Formats: sequence, structure tokens, C-alpha cells
Amino acid sequence: MKRLIGVIGARECPPESLELAYQVGREIARHGFGLVCGGMKGVMEESARGCKEEGGLTVGIIPGDDFSQANPFIDIVIPTAMGIMRNLLVVRAAAGLIAIDGKYGTLSEIAYALQLQKPIVGLNTWDVSAELTKVNTAQEALKKLLEQMDL
Amino acid sequence: MKRLIGVIGARECPPESLELAYQVGREIARHGFGLVCGGMKGVMEESARGCKEEGGLTVGIIPGDDFSQANPFIDIVIPTAMGIMRNLLVVRAAAGLIAIDGKYGTLSEIAYALQLQKPIVGLNTWDVSAELTKVNTAQEALKKLLEQMDL
Amino acid sequence: MKRLIGVIGARECPPESLELAYQVGREIARHGFGLVCGGMKGVMEESARGCKEEGGLTVGIIPGDDFSQANPFIDIVIPTAMGIMRNLLVVRAAAGLIAIDGKYGTLSEIAYALQLQKPIVGLNTWDVSAELTKVNTAQEALKKLLEQMDL
Amino acid sequence: MKRLIGVIGARECPPESLELAYQVGREIARHGFGLVCGGMKGVMEESARGCKEEGGLTVGIIPGDDFSQANPFIDIVIPTAMGIMRNLLVVRAAAGLIAIDGKYGTLSEIAYALQLQKPIVGLNTWDVSAELTKVNTAQEALKKLLEQMDL
Repeated sequence: MKRLIGVIGARECPPESLELAYQVGREIARHGFGLVCGGMKGVMEESARGCKEEGGLTVGIIPGDDFSQANPFIDIVIPTAMGIMRNLLVVRAAAGLIAIDGKYGTLSEIAYALQLQKPIVGLNTWDVSAELTKVNTAQEALKKLLEQMDL
Repeated sequence: MKRLIGVIGARECPPESLELAYQVGREIARHGFGLVCGGMKGVMEESARGCKEEGGLTVGIIPGDDFSQANPFIDIVIPTAMGIMRNLLVVRAAAGLIAIDGKYGTLSEIAYALQLQKPIVGLNTWDVSAELTKVNTAQEALKKLLEQMDL
Repeated sequence: MKRLIGVIGARECPPESLELAYQVGREIARHGFGLVCGGMKGVMEESARGCKEEGGLTVGIIPGDDFSQANPFIDIVIPTAMGIMRNLLVVRAAAGLIAIDGKYGTLSEIAYALQLQKPIVGLNTWDVSAELTKVNTAQEALKKLLEQMDL
Repeated sequence: MKRLIGVIGARECPPESLELAYQVGREIARHGFGLVCGGMKGVMEESARGCKEEGGLTVGIIPGDDFSQANPFIDIVIPTAMGIMRNLLVVRAAAGLIAIDGKYGTLSEIAYALQLQKPIVGLNTWDVSAELTKVNTAQEALKKLLEQMDL
């Protein structure tokens, strides 16, 4: 079984967050994990792009029913036709999660991750709990996340 | 069609929150609305109890597959067997929501309500957004919620 | 708790099936049950209309996210935004089911009902199992269904 | 994007069906596709085993919330905690489907595939529609399925 790290964040966000997402994707692949995300634009696309550039595997659990809605860096597309309800599937599919920036959709995913006691770290995102470890770089994100994960 | 107001909050919480939930349930019925909640214990049970005492209709969208898991004050039980994923169904079924106390499950519901731009007020709960109007009593909760709702 | 009988069938079907649906809705109310269905047109609308005419309660679990998509005879609208995945929720919410006519969507609901060992009878519908009791009238549908239900 | 072929069938079935499932898994990999299934035992496990033996990629969309419930031949585990509701996700994730033997769960998947107009062939399974092409061997299954698929 390939273990996946989830990347959650908004479709639209400033360039700094997109760059962080890209770096996080690269780090995930370098550490030998696959990446799972919501499969759309923004943080989802940039993290998948980074992961692919380092030879990693990417899974996108998308809100609609059409494979073509996924961004071009997704290897495995899971079309749900469940809309934002699919957020929870992204959280469940991940062995650990990295939240980057993000709006209310990301907040719902953070809440679910915390409720399910999944390891999670945050880069420039919602500050709702001491259980969400704040980090500042992609390298630090992976390091702190792996410390929490049952490897 | 009967319009429903959603009550979200934890299974376990202090007596003050349970009393608030009970009063909120009463106010919902007095204003002529039905109540929708997650159908289980704690805030869900107390608000349903209050609603029934005032002759209101209660709907419980429960995480399991067994009708008997619902609390005894639920008129219409919707068993989902979807676990906490059913949280979003509670939010969608509500014309407006009242959050009371609550942990991460409630936070996920608040996030979904804000994402879907549902009117929502909060009693002693997560303070994550200016869009979540803070109130202090059940009466104030209904008053402020109705001001936001498209009646 | 109000016990619900599920009515499943197509959005489009011949007048005879619509008339059967209407009669089934009336019988459900006369026997003191509520009705749950997919909330849309065709068999769903006619059965709900019949149920309302006899003073019964109707629940519609709809595929979209907009209350206004439900037919006008639904008291409690549960918007799922899950598309046809909501079929299973209709089955789960019912203490027993009556299938009328129907296409592949109805077949999926019949399959789920049989898998979950829910009592089910069929009027002019898919003949896929001896466990699906065939009946010819609305009265017979209720009679045979109630014989199977744990009352 | 890796295109996936779905294999649907029961957890428990006779040895002939398991052998067919194994051969189908091999053929899927030989034709360059990935395999998606419900991730559990029986037809799901044997088809995944065959696919892995030929170097293919396997995706399992499982009913529970625990990665370890998947059979050992699944590369990508998607835990849904949605029970049998996840059947529809298997159908949606597939570009085309092969049904092998199976009981009511498989019937629900066949119904969904037909409703969504997904290409589907059947090996010793439910005979509910002329739109479900009957085949007799794994080789024939792939041949007939690919004829229906938009390649």
C-alpha cells in the first residue's frame, strides 16, 4: 500500500501560498509518499505539480463527476459528485495532512482531521487548535508531520 | 414545506450549554420552525426536547444506520450510515443554524455553514469568523438568526 | 418517532404508474405512516400528493442542494447535493419500501433494499428477486408490506 | 491520468468466479489500465491480485475507515466510512466496468453503471439489461469492454 499525505488549501490564494504548496508537493515525493488532495486548482494543483516533478504519485478526490475537472497533475482521479462533502474523503485517505492557507473549505478539513486525530501541520492557515502544529517551510512541514505519524 | 433551523453542538458539554440548547429548542418551536440536528445526545437531545415540549417538529440526521440510535425527541429519523460525514447534511437541511458550544465536529459544521453562506449564530462556541454572529441567550439567537434569514 | 414508508420509482413513467403512485401515497397516510421519497417529479410527486391529501407527512431526500427543487407536496426537504447517491438514504430512512415502475435508479434502490433486508414490495417494476413481493394494487402493496414489517 | 477499469463482484463466491476475477485483473494490467474495486475480499481481492502480478496499479475504495481493512493487493486505499454507499464511488472512478458474479451489492453497482451510461460487461452475473454485454472469458471481457469505451 502506498501511504498518502493530504494537502488541503484553497483554489484561490496568493502566490506565496502557491509556492509553498509546490514545495510541499516536492517534499512529499522526496520522502517517498504519495499525495492526495481535492484535485482542483490553487494549492491542490501546485502541490500536485511539485509532487509529479519529483516522480511522486498523486490522487485527486474531486467534487464533480467529470474526470476532466481534475488538474493536469493528478494520476488517479476519484470523481465523487458529492461536492464539498468530498472534503472528508480527502482527510480519510491521508495518513497525515498539511494545511496551506485556505478558507472555510480548508477549515472544514482541518476540523475533520482534528476530530479524527490525524496528524496535521499548518502553513499560514487557520489557527484553531494547539493540536494543529504551525510550521513555516515545506521542509519543516514534512519534518514535523513525520514526527507525529506512525511510520 | 416546513422550514427547519439547525442546532449544532457536542454530544458532551457542561450543563449551561445543555440548558441553552433546551431553551433554543423551545424558541425554535415558538417561532414556528422545525428543528434539524444530528439526532444524538447532548446539545442535540436537549434542543430536540425543548422543541417537542413546545409542539415543534424535530428531524435527526444520524451517523449510524439504526433508528434506535436517535434520541427520544426526534420525530423524523434519517439514518445515514455515513458517520460524521452526515454533518454536512444537517447544515444543508437547515435554513439557518445555531451553534452551541461544541468541539471539532461542531467546527466542521460551522465551517460548512459559512462556506455555504447559511445564516448562523453562535452561543458560547468557536470564534472563527465575523460572519458567525455571537449571541448570549436563546431569545437573542433566534432574533439575530431571523434577521439574517430570507423569510 | 414517525415511521416512514419509502416510495421509489422514476421521474418519468406512464399514467397508470402515476395513478398507482398516487393511490399508494393515500394508503400510506391512511395506515398512519409518513412517506419518504426522492422528492422529485413522477412517482415521487404523485405519491407525495396522495399522502398529503390524506393528511400524511412527507419527506423528500433530494439530489440537489436547493429546497425549491423538491415537488410541492414535500413537507420536510433534505437537500443532499449528492446526486443519485442519495438513493441509498431514501432506502435507509424507510421502514419498508414500495417500488413502482422505474428505471435504473429504481433498480439501484431495489438492490440496496434487498441488500439491507428491508421489507419491499413491487408494483409493475423490476423482477430481480423472489424477495421482492409482486403486488397489483396500492391496497395490496400496503397489506403485503405490513405483513413483512416489524410492527 | 491513469484510466481505471472497475471490477465489481461479491466478497463470497465460487472458485470459478474467483478464477475469472484473477484473470480479469491480469488482462486489465496487460492492457495498460489500472484497476479500481471495493478493496475487500473475494472478486475484489482476486482481481487486484491478478492486476498486481502483471505490474498494474490497484485502487480500493473501501466501506470502512481503516486502511488495514483493504486486501493486501491494493496500492491506493480510499477509506470512506460510508459503508455500501461507497459502491457508487467505485462506479464513478471507473472508465468502464466488469461485473463478475455478485449479489445485491453488485446489482446496485450494475444499476448505477447503467444509469450513468458507463460501458459495462458481465461475466456470470445479473442479467437485467441488454445494455450489459454478457461475456464468457476474461479476454472477451476486455475486448468487448474496450469496444464500448471512448479510447
